[in-house]
Amino acid sequence: MSGNSYGKLFSISTFGESHGPALGCVIDGCPPGIELSEADLQEDLDRRKPGTSRHTTQRREDDIVQILSGVFEGKTTGTSIGLLIQNTDQRSKDYSNIADTFRPAHADYVYTHKYGFRDYRGGGRSSARETAMRVAAGGIAKKFLASKGVTIRGYLSQLGPLKIDDSKFDWDQVNQNPFFSPDADIVPEMERYMDALRKEGDSIGAKITVVAEGVPVGLGEPIFDRLDAELAHALMSINAVKGIEIGDGFAVVEQKGTQHRDEMTPEGFCSNHAGGILGGISTGQAITASIALKPTSSLRLPGRSINAKGEAIEVITQGRHDPCVGIRATPIAEAMMAIVLMDHYLRHRAQNADVVCDTPVLKG
Amino acid sequence: MSGNSYGKLFSISTFGESHGPALGCVIDGCPPGIELSEADLQEDLDRRKPGTSRHTTQRREDDIVQILSGVFEGKTTGTSIGLLIQNTDQRSKDYSNIADTFRPAHADYVYTHKYGFRDYRGGGRSSARETAMRVAAGGIAKKFLASKGVTIRGYLSQLGPLKIDDSKFDWDQVNQNPFFSPDADIVPEMERYMDALRKEGDSIGAKITVVAEGVPVGLGEPIFDRLDAELAHALMSINAVKGIEIGDGFAVVEQKGTQHRDEMTPEGFCSNHAGGILGGISTGQAITASIALKPTSSLRLPGRSINAKGEAIEVITQGRHDPCVGIRATPIAEAMMAIVLMDHYLRHRAQNADVVCDTPVLKG
Amino acid sequence: MSGNSYGKLFSISTFGESHGPALGCVIDGCPPGIELSEADLQEDLDRRKPGTSRHTTQRREDDIVQILSGVFEGKTTGTSIGLLIQNTDQRSKDYSNIADTFRPAHADYVYTHKYGFRDYRGGGRSSARETAMRVAAGGIAKKFLASKGVTIRGYLSQLGPLKIDDSKFDWDQVNQNPFFSPDADIVPEMERYMDALRKEGDSIGAKITVVAEGVPVGLGEPIFDRLDAELAHALMSINAVKGIEIGDGFAVVEQKGTQHRDEMTPEGFCSNHAGGILGGISTGQAITASIALKPTSSLRLPGRSINAKGEAIEVITQGRHDPCVGIRATPIAEAMMAIVLMDHYLRHRAQNADVVCDTPVLKG
Amino acid sequence: MSGNSYGKLFSISTFGESHGPALGCVIDGCPPGIELSEADLQEDLDRRKPGTSRHTTQRREDDIVQILSGVFEGKTTGTSIGLLIQNTDQRSKDYSNIADTFRPAHADYVYTHKYGFRDYRGGGRSSARETAMRVAAGGIAKKFLASKGVTIRGYLSQLGPLKIDDSKFDWDQVNQNPFFSPDADIVPEMERYMDALRKEGDSIGAKITVVAEGVPVGLGEPIFDRLDAELAHALMSINAVKGIEIGDGFAVVEQKGTQHRDEMTPEGFCSNHAGGILGGISTGQAITASIALKPTSSLRLPGRSINAKGEAIEVITQGRHDPCVGIRATPIAEAMMAIVLMDHYLRHRAQNADVVCDTPVLKG
Repeated sequence: MSGNSYGKLFSISTFGESHGPALGCVIDGCPPGIELSEADLQEDLDRRKPGTSRHTTQRREDDIVQILSGVFEGKTTGTSIGLLIQNTDQRSKDYSNIADTFRPAHADYVYTHKYGFRDYRGGGRSSARETAMRVAAGGIAKKFLASKGVTIRGYLSQLGPLKIDDSKFDWDQVNQNPFFSPDADIVPEMERYMDALRKEGDSIGAKITVVAEGVPVGLGEPIFDRLDAELAHALMSINAVKGIEIGDGFAVVEQKGTQHRDEMTPEGFCSNHAGGILGGISTGQAITASIALKPTSSLRLPGRSINAKGEAIEVITQGRHDPCVGIRATPIAEAMMAIVLMDHYLRHRAQNADVVCDTPVLKG
Repeated sequence: MSGNSYGKLFSISTFGESHGPALGCVIDGCPPGIELSEADLQEDLDRRKPGTSRHTTQRREDDIVQILSGVFEGKTTGTSIGLLIQNTDQRSKDYSNIADTFRPAHADYVYTHKYGFRDYRGGGRSSARETAMRVAAGGIAKKFLASKGVTIRGYLSQLGPLKIDDSKFDWDQVNQNPFFSPDADIVPEMERYMDALRKEGDSIGAKITVVAEGVPVGLGEPIFDRLDAELAHALMSINAVKGIEIGDGFAVVEQKGTQHRDEMTPEGFCSNHAGGILGGISTGQAITASIALKPTSSLRLPGRSINAKGEAIEVITQGRHDPCVGIRATPIAEAMMAIVLMDHYLRHRAQNADVVCDTPVLKG
Repeated sequence: MSGNSYGKLFSISTFGESHGPALGCVIDGCPPGIELSEADLQEDLDRRKPGTSRHTTQRREDDIVQILSGVFEGKTTGTSIGLLIQNTDQRSKDYSNIADTFRPAHADYVYTHKYGFRDYRGGGRSSARETAMRVAAGGIAKKFLASKGVTIRGYLSQLGPLKIDDSKFDWDQVNQNPFFSPDADIVPEMERYMDALRKEGDSIGAKITVVAEGVPVGLGEPIFDRLDAELAHALMSINAVKGIEIGDGFAVVEQKGTQHRDEMTPEGFCSNHAGGILGGISTGQAITASIALKPTSSLRLPGRSINAKGEAIEVITQGRHDPCVGIRATPIAEAMMAIVLMDHYLRHRAQNADVVCDTPVLKG
Repeated sequence: MSGNSYGKLFSISTFGESHGPALGCVIDGCPPGIELSEADLQEDLDRRKPGTSRHTTQRREDDIVQILSGVFEGKTTGTSIGLLIQNTDQRSKDYSNIADTFRPAHADYVYTHKYGFRDYRGGGRSSARETAMRVAAGGIAKKFLASKGVTIRGYLSQLGPLKIDDSKFDWDQVNQNPFFSPDADIVPEMERYMDALRKEGDSIGAKITVVAEGVPVGLGEPIFDRLDAELAHALMSINAVKGIEIGDGFAVVEQKGTQHRDEMTPEGFCSNHAGGILGGISTGQAITASIALKPTSSLRLPGRSINAKGEAIEVITQGRHDPCVGIRATPIAEAMMAIVLMDHYLRHRAQNADVVCDTPVLKG
């Protein structure tokens, strides 16, 4: 596979560019008998789609997904599932002017060198537009995992300098504001920050956290396909991500063993510094992962760059962009975590379906 | 593949437990005609091996690697390469007492649930002992990459609270001290810190940074096998790693686009916040990745845990352990980065060998 | 991957059922810069499509393929290519009567047991309808291989008892008759045979041979991904195939070494009993493979079977079927051979692009 | 993976040359808790090993296998299993004379072109010597399958012109003679035939048949990883194989649908022309596959060839060779069938473990 597929047993293979006619996906390995309809996938697509608030790109895409195969009489058949989303609002002319220029910190320069030329319309394949298909595919994984008692949720943990206040954490707030913030009180501040940023013409980074609850103990395939390693792969493959943390993440550098180790008692684990993964295998506790997303480089403010001939130019990016790409990343991160967990659920039972273990399972 | 293989074109498949008779590896996809001898691999094995200073485990392993196939008349043949390292200092009796107990923050509990029982001798397969084979395999990748002008080096960037001083950074110092510190002045402080820690019976985390120079522009396979995603996978698969950063990593959360974007001029890139990767593809600049390693949980200090029956017990870990597992991780991280880059070098030329690009390559 | 993808570097992932809305495919790993249009793929689709003569099913499908991604300004971009074919002539009601019955020698019984239920409309995923996508994807591989001097052609070598006469072999005849017969003189006999068979309500087997010319020496990845092993995999994956031969095939059982070995002289190979593959690697001679296709089991003549309850029933298959599925298999077999050769062309150069060999290449 | 690995969930990765120090294998994905010892693997190794009768090569190899990991206290642990077989009887000097010559119908010519040079000692990696590791790995698969009620057996169905008489078929005879013939009466004739052949200095082809009984209905992953397609891949990857048949194989070309279709009654299947596989999925009947093996080209009788400079030479192969490589292929074919079935057993339950099907399973 050359990079457009992910997963070993539950696998997705996607296609589609920012300004092509459509995005598509082949999903292979989905167990049969799961009730599935387009509506199941549309919910997360609507959470991700652009233009839902003034703080995201004003591009208008309904992102309506069609299921073209693999579902019969309302249930998955066990054969491959084909998904399609038509692109409706493309406005290629916005981009014709950048055909021969390389936007700083975008993929323009590397795509040109790797492939010899590039689809310059809105970044082509390198655009985060493709993540719509990840969200649609992730919806199938979420449906399967829900039938196994696993739930996956994410939230914005930091927007630039603005950190959420854990004492005000409320899952019910996450989908009540345009930022996926679980802290309702900080939302007005975020609104003001983003409005100022937009006027300024600049962009900002963000931090997203995703949490999986109800994951059984045992998922993950050492030594290379540890669950944390696969999560790192899947989350780092999302556009603009520059860092990954599992559990305490980089805080462990200054922790002592007595402080970090999660002690166990017959009543359960005493803490969860590990983020629900030990030795690359799920412990049964909540799995927590955080990602750092860089600020977009599509800015109205001029930047130095070169053109295809290697000559110095000044770049100003017009068009419609997210001043904080992190905002819409929450459902994408949830989708990738769901795909990894479903894949590993299947991989685990393939090898270990016959295992009998008398040791009691501890509470998280 | 069920987790013990890594890489698509240059792939390694390993076996071996902490206290089994031997560790081994099959390396597939190595190009023919590369001069290779055991000596080429031994150098990094010696950098990783235990017992070289009082700051690492006192277990004695010579870690002598044998090449059993794939090399003829001093050159690789293009067929699979078999490597073997005999375990010599096993002392299984040290571990018999923990057969039915689960050490907190170790893989004991999850291995027992996943597989139904476990090889309790020194952690069995979950022990970092297996990383010797990663280092041996990585030596082959380093040899190949060197022939393409790519060099990979790593260092300890932080030991618990002790950060190296970038103004004193000197690559030549890295292999001159037991910590792989590029800052010679901080070494005495590290010595004192580790001595105190050992007396105390506790352990500490660390941060390691690896850098690849001379990487051509174009390596990485979007959208899922982006070069940064594969590096995250490979580095997170190393024992005790809890966090990954590419370039500026988590610092991007608070950066603005104007600050983060690496501008380009005909003379080259103006900065490298991206860590040498854009859109998941190498830019030709230095690739930089950092990892956070947790403190080991093998402590003399008692901890609460349970046994196989689920009963409350107190665990005290005797035996020989690294008070800071991060110290020996530097050559391991280099090896994993080398394996990823070699795999992607081959993947890139498979698809793009015929590409012609007139755009000049920028300086890093 | 769970069975709906094929190929390691040039890979195809397909979806679609006989009576679903559409068939689709994601093609990954296609090199950039190849001129490609829908017309390039339509030619072989038209050779395969039903209803072109009275000797094939009368189902009407135009099989118009759309390219949805991966091609920009007439050339492949190196990103994944999405293909779509709408199903137009479905007539699901033809099949409602067989919802609970298992047709003998069809996949009905095994799909029901494997997946718990099945899409009974025209065989769902098990229908040869999916091969349209193989032909479309194979068209891309043929285009790439042509640019490397490789041509792939196939023909019908036997229709039931009727063997073609090698002394009358003429490649130019193959596409001039509805049977893909290279022997024009036997065509009227085949017409008569098929007309009689249709009246009778029975079906018949066939043998197809595919030949690749201009293949460079060196393709194939021992020891498991030998070129012949991959061809066997790809060709056996075509519906109704029960046998594979490379070169002399089963005739080798009675051959002596002196007779079978293909001697070499400075002028070239003296024979090609091996079918262009030695040790699993292409020799540079013509690669020849033959496949045996069983007679379809969709017959008007009653057969004994069971229903979903396990009760005895009599099955009579109405609807529109190919009395000899082998007839339309020629372009499908060509497509699968093309996909295998393109994949191995890329795999070979990934590992061996730097190889220098002074030994002259022999003529075929 | 570059060709030295086979299997997706139960996978083997092998190394080793004919005249290297050792052969080895990493087996990944073996479920935990299976009782396993070297003795379990030695039985089939002894059936395959050379020098057991005057009709096979006189090379002396004890083929003693060591298990180096993945087994603890007599049971598999679920981690990767390392196997090693030391080469003991190498006699490299036998081969030094062929360093620069290409034996007709051997891999010498293609290896040299593919890799630039080759290990000429006894064919290096291209020698059937590597099949010892397939047999060892297959022994593990046989042990697992036996615990699921699946048994795999093979036999010689034809030696050159000598076909076994089905009316005299007796499984108990197979391991009672040096040819694996189930027909005791034909053995003396085979003895005479082989003695004459040896005097003559020539070699002969053979046909081997393998049968799996007790396979549950449902194994196989359409559309590309059909069970028959994977069997074809695995069996064609065995040295010297030029043809594959499933069930009736090439006989289907002349069969009519009414004759070929295996009718079903509540009492079971009425026949098994399909060889136990429909639509690429096991039916629950016996799975039967036959392979054609070419005569070896290592002959005392002179043959025309070229040397590395491309000059005409005459080749006479001294040394120790099998005049009929097919004879020792029976345990190898059994091993490959076992590996495929075990892999698919795991793949099937990964996706379909939750399937409930009320339709009764038919007798074979």
